Amino acid sequence: MRHDHVITSKHLSRADVETVLDRAAEIAADPSAVADRHAGALLGLLFFEPSTRTKLSFETAMKRLGGDVVDMGSVESSSVTKGETLADTVRVIEGYTDALVLRHPKEGAATMASEFVDVPLLNAGDGAGQHPTQTLLDLYTIRENAGLDDLTIGIMGDLKYGRTVHSLAYALSNFDTRQHFISPESLQLPREVVYDLHQQQGGRTGIREHQRLEAVLGDLDVLYVTRIQRERFPDESEYRKVAGEYQIDRETLEAASDDLTVMHPLPRVDEIAPEVDDTEYAAYFEQAHNGVPVRMALLDLLLSEGGVSDE
Amino acid sequence: MRHDHVITSKHLSRADVETVLDRAAEIAADPSAVADRHAGALLGLLFFEPSTRTKLSFETAMKRLGGDVVDMGSVESSSVTKGETLADTVRVIEGYTDALVLRHPKEGAATMASEFVDVPLLNAGDGAGQHPTQTLLDLYTIRENAGLDDLTIGIMGDLKYGRTVHSLAYALSNFDTRQHFISPESLQLPREVVYDLHQQQGGRTGIREHQRLEAVLGDLDVLYVTRIQRERFPDESEYRKVAGEYQIDRETLEAASDDLTVMHPLPRVDEIAPEVDDTEYAAYFEQAHNGVPVRMALLDLLLSEGGVSDE
Amino acid sequence: MRHDHVITSKHLSRADVETVLDRAAEIAADPSAVADRHAGALLGLLFFEPSTRTKLSFETAMKRLGGDVVDMGSVESSSVTKGETLADTVRVIEGYTDALVLRHPKEGAATMASEFVDVPLLNAGDGAGQHPTQTLLDLYTIRENAGLDDLTIGIMGDLKYGRTVHSLAYALSNFDTRQHFISPESLQLPREVVYDLHQQQGGRTGIREHQRLEAVLGDLDVLYVTRIQRERFPDESEYRKVAGEYQIDRETLEAASDDLTVMHPLPRVDEIAPEVDDTEYAAYFEQAHNGVPVRMALLDLLLSEGGVSDE
Repeated sequence: MRHDHVITSKHLSRADVETVLDRAAEIAADPSAVADRHAGALLGLLFFEPSTRTKLSFETAMKRLGGDVVDMGSVESSSVTKGETLADTVRVIEGYTDALVLRHPKEGAATMASEFVDVPLLNAGDGAGQHPTQTLLDLYTIRENAGLDDLTIGIMGDLKYGRTVHSLAYALSNFDTRQHFISPESLQLPREVVYDLHQQQGGRTGIREHQRLEAVLGDLDVLYVTRIQRERFPDESEYRKVAGEYQIDRETLEAASDDLTVMHPLPRVDEIAPEVDDTEYAAYFEQAHNGVPVRMALLDLLLSEGGVSDE
Repeated sequence: MRHDHVITSKHLSRADVETVLDRAAEIAADPSAVADRHAGALLGLLFFEPSTRTKLSFETAMKRLGGDVVDMGSVESSSVTKGETLADTVRVIEGYTDALVLRHPKEGAATMASEFVDVPLLNAGDGAGQHPTQTLLDLYTIRENAGLDDLTIGIMGDLKYGRTVHSLAYALSNFDTRQHFISPESLQLPREVVYDLHQQQGGRTGIREHQRLEAVLGDLDVLYVTRIQRERFPDESEYRKVAGEYQIDRETLEAASDDLTVMHPLPRVDEIAPEVDDTEYAAYFEQAHNGVPVRMALLDLLLSEGGVSDE
Repeated sequence: MRHDHVITSKHLSRADVETVLDRAAEIAADPSAVADRHAGALLGLLFFEPSTRTKLSFETAMKRLGGDVVDMGSVESSSVTKGETLADTVRVIEGYTDALVLRHPKEGAATMASEFVDVPLLNAGDGAGQHPTQTLLDLYTIRENAGLDDLTIGIMGDLKYGRTVHSLAYALSNFDTRQHFISPESLQLPREVVYDLHQQQGGRTGIREHQRLEAVLGDLDVLYVTRIQRERFPDESEYRKVAGEYQIDRETLEAASDDLTVMHPLPRVDEIAPEVDDTEYAAYFEQAHNGVPVRMALLDLLLSEGGVSDE
């Protein structure tokens, strides 16, 4: 399979993932080697939803490759307010650029948009749908810290609504991993995701669900924490009670392996206490920073050969 | 006449237009020849009104010439909210840049601003006034598709309020063109524009007004469609009735010449059905994309010699 | 003292200031010598408050050094709205960039942020606190027009709330200057600032306060005018009466020395009549433009050696 677009992490095979991560590692080891590699190339940024780190990270990646970006700006300042369709917007902007990055509140937007354009399109999040570059930087961070084979990972927090979590779980199922999902009952993984993961694993039973972190903490190589959002709960007191049980601080981590890597897609609110930041466990800022080499690798592969792999 | 600024298409002679379009064609044929031509040059973007394609197109053009932009950002995030005059704003920002692009809601703003600055200033639309770079890209698209001599063009839609249309009509009157204006009676060309066009044509009767497209469709080389805005009508039902009569779809185009070129300044809403996009007639995305070589040509001429022509 | 960050003008010694101003003068004399000096370097722009000239001026400075910027954008479009702390935001973005510029509404924000990052951080204004790059460009403009030794300067307008004014006064006290402060009684310099200035001057009595410009106008080498804001007054009529007494026009300036330099941090509203703009006195647009070489000098010093001085 050849990818001219990067829309979903579901379509990325193990070989695809490794191609991207290997290239990212090369780039991270010697960024100066690619500093002019895509001089003159332009990346179009189409963010129909607010974003700080994803957008900045793409912009940084393109500039670190010697290229530049053009940014549609906020929806409020664009023609979208005049009733233009997404299809028309992407068709106009693709004519200005060599590749496009799209974030959109509607699931499926990236797939639809990709059908109208000839330049590579990267999905930077489509509503409750996919966010494949986040998944790739998560995988890169896991590989750098704990390896992707014979991995025991705990994924904790809001597992029901978190697209980050679903994408990561699907991608990890291509590797030899044991996945523990830790959440309050009301925020468990959707049953169809659990079913898909079992199918994808070919009958291996690498998936377990828990309501308490203590049950598995000592076994974990990686703990991936996500935010539990207030608006998922009927009232404040219920939220506080639940959220409090899924917070990480130094005391929590006393039961962890010394090699544990703690990750978080950020922004965090109260899920991880600031006192954890200076410990050896904390990898969440490194994880955010890894967005740059990973997106550099993706852009480099798409702009150089027109595809992530050429199997 | 020498142009250090590009404020209005009225001041652009036929020779000026041809200089710009010829340069744009050269650039479009071999963009790599100018990829570093203005390295180090900075273009200031001052958009006091929202814009997607004009702003992105200028930004792309400058970057495709090896230069870069600095963007004032939205009015809400600028000193304008502290009561600064336009004259002060442009005088400050010209000190940072090698050229300025200004869009402003007030007619005449670009003329006024140009009196305060020493760097070249390009008008990217001033209210109901001029939008000369749109006119130049329209002319470029017409020339590429149908030629500018012995041209029969239909201009349809809101002809009363559309600055795009007035600018285009004035510019076309420098060439050997027959212009058909098709609109509901309430949105006809203003009488003074008709008068000016007759004057400019020196008595030739190259101008005709119609209420129905069928009357002339078969004769047209180019059909230029513009949007009819809901807010021009006292009620929704009146709008729907009128707008519906000026929409283009595949059935409409059965009566057209096979060589017809359909243009639209975009964004469109319902004026042209999506089913037209894949036909040979459709040139509106190409038209939007032509904004880049045309603006590259203008910027190149202004930054290289300090003027569009030196007659 | 060595500065890896530029947080406050209080910490800048006379030698530090001269290092920056000398470098700025070199750059202004031959900007082409540094046009590629920091190619590939990225400056992160974190503006938590609106700004036009400071932000554009930093962006221009970085690009004139061959570098580029990545801009967090407005707070509304960022993760800040999801409750992220400033510490987390700067730690993420520092991983993308080689230096950071921060403007924030809270006094002390820059100091706090600088404790979390390894790349140089420049304070572009923190609420009622410091704005050291404004001070440096003010000093540069004064030095170019009147010299910094044996200087008699009048600082007029809102002296109570104006951070620009306080920073400038502190910085000038490192030089041999006589400072006259002219304001309505209700907008006098805070007593603690007066005290600090006396202390800093080591007993020299280089500070005088006045309520009327006429008392000192004839003696001044430089008159630095700031805006008196309507919201400082209980009612409109009181504001009008006071503001009117502190406005400068050609008539006012008849009593000035021919060599007087009039400065203003801009944006101005009514403090200086437009008729003054074309006189030899006016240096406020030059002052705004000086933001570029001064910020180029600072960025160059920070990016080249990791510090403004290495005493």
